[in-house]
Amino acid sequence: MPASFYAPALAKLIDKFNSLPGIGPKSAQRIAFYVLAMSDDAAEDFADTIRNAHKKIHKCKKCCNLTDSELCPICSNDKRDKKTVCVVQDPKDVIALEKTQEYSALYHVLGGVISPMNGIGPDELSIKELIARVNEDNVSEVIMATSANAEGETTAIYISRLLKPLGVKVTRLAYGIPVGADLEYADEVTLVRALEGRREL
Amino acid sequence: MPASFYAPALAKLIDKFNSLPGIGPKSAQRIAFYVLAMSDDAAEDFADTIRNAHKKIHKCKKCCNLTDSELCPICSNDKRDKKTVCVVQDPKDVIALEKTQEYSALYHVLGGVISPMNGIGPDELSIKELIARVNEDNVSEVIMATSANAEGETTAIYISRLLKPLGVKVTRLAYGIPVGADLEYADEVTLVRALEGRREL
Repeated sequence: MPASFYAPALAKLIDKFNSLPGIGPKSAQRIAFYVLAMSDDAAEDFADTIRNAHKKIHKCKKCCNLTDSELCPICSNDKRDKKTVCVVQDPKDVIALEKTQEYSALYHVLGGVISPMNGIGPDELSIKELIARVNEDNVSEVIMATSANAEGETTAIYISRLLKPLGVKVTRLAYGIPVGADLEYADEVTLVRALEGRREL
Repeated sequence: MPASFYAPALAKLIDKFNSLPGIGPKSAQRIAFYVLAMSDDAAEDFADTIRNAHKKIHKCKKCCNLTDSELCPICSNDKRDKKTVCVVQDPKDVIALEKTQEYSALYHVLGGVISPMNGIGPDELSIKELIARVNEDNVSEVIMATSANAEGETTAIYISRLLKPLGVKVTRLAYGIPVGADLEYADEVTLVRALEGRREL
C-alpha cells in the first residue's frame, strides 16, 4: 500500500504491529486506529508497559525462565521438589506444564532447540547452565520435555548424552495418543509409539 | 490463568496486548514473548512509535481525517477536485476508497454514524464541519459513502436533509456494496461500481 495514504507516524505504527507474529496488514491497521483512539494516558501506559517489561524482565539465574527478580518464583519456592528438573524449550512450555497443576519440581528453559538449519547450535542454548545445575544442586532426575519433532528429539538425545556421565537419571515425556483424540485421526508414527509405550492396566 | 505464572511486568504486557481488538490470550502471550525477545533498541523504538503516533496524529482541520500536519495530504493536494466531497465514517474508509485509484476529489470523515443505541447523536460527528465546508468552499457535490446498513443509511439521509437547502447536489453510493457489510471490507471493483452508480438523494 503506498505510504502516502497514511501520515508517517501512523504508517510506522501500522508497520510495527504488522511485524508482530500472527498480525496481518488488516489487523495491524485496525489495532493502530484503536491505539490512536485511546486516551493519552492509556497510550502512554501502553508504551511504558512495553518499555518496562523489556527493561525488567530477564532470565532467571538458575533456570533461565523469564522473571523480574534474580530467581524466578518457581526456583525460589521452597515447597517445590529441588531434585527433579524438567527441561523445556520456551517459557511458554513452563506455563503449559504449570497449568496441569501436577508438576511440583523445577524447570530449565533452553531457549530453543538445536537447529542447524536456523543456525542454532548447542552454544546458543542454556545447556551449560543445565550441566552446572546438575553438578552443583544434587539433581537426581532430568525430564526432557522438548517438542516431539525431529529437532526436539535431537536436542533431547544430545543433552541426555551429556548428562548421563554425571550419574543423573534422564527421562523423556511419553509419546502417545493425545487424551480425547479419536484413534482414527492419529498418525502412524504416533500410533507406533503409543503401542510401544503401552502399559498394563 | 493465575497471575503468579508470570512476573508482574510480563503479566501487564500480555494484558495490554490482550486488550487490543482481535487479539486473544494465546496471541497476546505469543506477542509479549516476541517483544521481550526484541533487541533493546527495537523495544524502545516500538514504545516510542506508539507514543509518537498518539502525540502527532490528530484530525485534519478541513476533513477530520487523521494526519500529522494541519491539513491532511489529500486536502492539501492541489491536483484534487475541490468541488466534490465524499463523506465517510472512518479514516479506514478513506484508505479503502483511495485504493480504488478512481476517486480524485476530497473526503469528509464523520468519525462514526448516528447510532442512538450507542449514544452517538449528530453532535458527536463532524457534521457541523461538513456544513461549514459546503458553505465556504463552493462544494458542488457531496457523495454520501457511509456504510450500507441501517445506521449508515440513516446518517446519509439525515445529512442530505441538512445539505440540500444549501443548494448542493447530494448523492449516495450505489448498492454495489453488499448490503450489511462494512465499507472497509469491500473490494476495489465493488467500490468503483458503487462510485459510478451513485444516485441523487
